[in-house]
Amino acid sequence: MITEIATLRIDPAKAEAFEAAVAAAKPYFQSSPGCHGMALEKVIETPGLYHLRVLWETVEAHTVTFRGSDNFQQWRALAGPFFVSPPDVVHAETAATFF
Amino acid sequence: MITEIATLRIDPAKAEAFEAAVAAAKPYFQSSPGCHGMALEKVIETPGLYHLRVLWETVEAHTVTFRGSDNFQQWRALAGPFFVSPPDVVHAETAATFF
Repeated sequence: MITEIATLRIDPAKAEAFEAAVAAAKPYFQSSPGCHGMALEKVIETPGLYHLRVLWETVEAHTVTFRGSDNFQQWRALAGPFFVSPPDVVHAETAATFF
Repeated sequence: MITEIATLRIDPAKAEAFEAAVAAAKPYFQSSPGCHGMALEKVIETPGLYHLRVLWETVEAHTVTFRGSDNFQQWRALAGPFFVSPPDVVHAETAATFF
């Protein structure tokens, strides 16, 4: 299992509508093969800065299967209009969970 | 509960020793008041790039209590020598956990 971490920047004045748009996109992630979890983090120091964290079985489940699917188009149709810059996306593996 | 996210950059050749140093620092976090979890993520695309994620009851439990304590000095003595640039630290709150 790996975690997609997408850093998303939006207009802080639109935070409520953006969070609702991400919530509305839940089924498009949940129905994507190999997708096992989805959470949204809000950075306290920087209004409008978010991390979308999505659990995938493999990097390719995100970058190939999801991005090549209609689910991705639906997600981008909902959330894309809020982005004030292109998302930065990385994938991470858990090195250790200590406690 | 909030999450400290520290972005740490090290020499990839020293990854094994760095991960051992973070593991050795576990008790200094675990014994700090208001600290409730600690995990290390490794970014797949960039060798040597890590996210240390630490759960705190409040931002101040990290920035005031922990950073003002001997526990912080012990952590930095273990991990600091590996850093190739100063850590970037933000704090995040969970906006939503969708599934």
